[in-house]
Amino acid sequence: MAEVFPEPLRRAIRALSLLPGLGEKSATRLALYLISHPERAGELAAALADLPRVKLCRECGNFTEGDLCRLCQDPERDPTVICVVEDPAALSVIEGTGAFRGRYHVLHGVLSPRDGLGPSELRFPELLQRIRRNGVREVLIGLSPTAAGEATAAYLLEILREFPVKVSRLATGLALGMEVRYADPLTLKRALAAREVLKD
Amino acid sequence: MAEVFPEPLRRAIRALSLLPGLGEKSATRLALYLISHPERAGELAAALADLPRVKLCRECGNFTEGDLCRLCQDPERDPTVICVVEDPAALSVIEGTGAFRGRYHVLHGVLSPRDGLGPSELRFPELLQRIRRNGVREVLIGLSPTAAGEATAAYLLEILREFPVKVSRLATGLALGMEVRYADPLTLKRALAAREVLKD
Ligand SMILES: [Zn+2]
Ligand SMILES: [Zn+2]
Repeated sequence: MAEVFPEPLRRAIRALSLLPGLGEKSATRLALYLISHPERAGELAAALADLPRVKLCRECGNFTEGDLCRLCQDPERDPTVICVVEDPAALSVIEGTGAFRGRYHVLHGVLSPRDGLGPSELRFPELLQRIRRNGVREVLIGLSPTAAGEATAAYLLEILREFPVKVSRLATGLALGMEVRYADPLTLKRALAAREVLKD
Repeated sequence: MAEVFPEPLRRAIRALSLLPGLGEKSATRLALYLISHPERAGELAAALADLPRVKLCRECGNFTEGDLCRLCQDPERDPTVICVVEDPAALSVIEGTGAFRGRYHVLHGVLSPRDGLGPSELRFPELLQRIRRNGVREVLIGLSPTAAGEATAAYLLEILREFPVKVSRLATGLALGMEVRYADPLTLKRALAAREVLKD
């Protein structure tokens, strides 16, 4: 449809339509909006240029600008309870409930042989190191109850067997097949309160 | 929800959530995608930086990089029939049908007193100039059959009354209240073929 548009506009439409969830129609709508709102385009370009400043917290793997994310720097948070999550989006939603006051550990994925994600691609060694070092009492598995999430939880339980830690996981008040990142705060709150103990 | 994220990431989420149709949830999803796909973020940033190269065709008001858009430069197109459209998105959809071989004129809006869009904000004078200069035989009103579109069509018919041109408009095979830019090609094709003559 965009053949009547000049190249810079078509290029913006292409760049936008490569983003997840944006088809050519929404990409065109956004590009036309950006052309007539150059200040918005400028803000977005500046924000994009700044994104490389984001790195991973060396402790938990959450996004951060410094070495340690703000959660790992917070002395009020219990360092002996670690909630393991798939990605920073899941962390953000769990944190949004206000019902968890421990620390997090971001795996940056779940086991998925099809996508070439085996144990060595995820941040398991860093988790074990934290458990050894910090007197961790409980690992709360905050993974989605999807097939890949369940497989990852089973693997975690396996490698944690030799450690003197309690292992729990979010109660599956979560509908099966649903992803944590899209859960509503109330359901999540209940799932946090009713977490099942897998190993004690 | 994004309070756990570092400032550059929150800034990207903010910039994206200011775009039409993107709520905080989709903005967050896109920003997280862009963090893990820096090449996509780079393409988008470069495309945004290039957008100011887009200007308006001095003849028809379509987007262009040069002085004249590619449609106005095409000698195969009939310069004596002009289709008046609201914006380049509408032009692009009409052009996509392949059923119109004349020229376009982009008003860049429709009359909307509420939004401060009166006749002097739209490109009516340029249209009259083209009609005077180029021996135009027919003006085809390609505006949406919405309240504002109808008002603009009525105004157009009024100012064209003194000119020796035929005035037609898209047949309202289009559902009332629907916008041209979202119409499907088949409906549009029929509306082009069955255009009503308003003045002959
Ligand atoms: Zn951290
Ligand atoms: Zn033109």
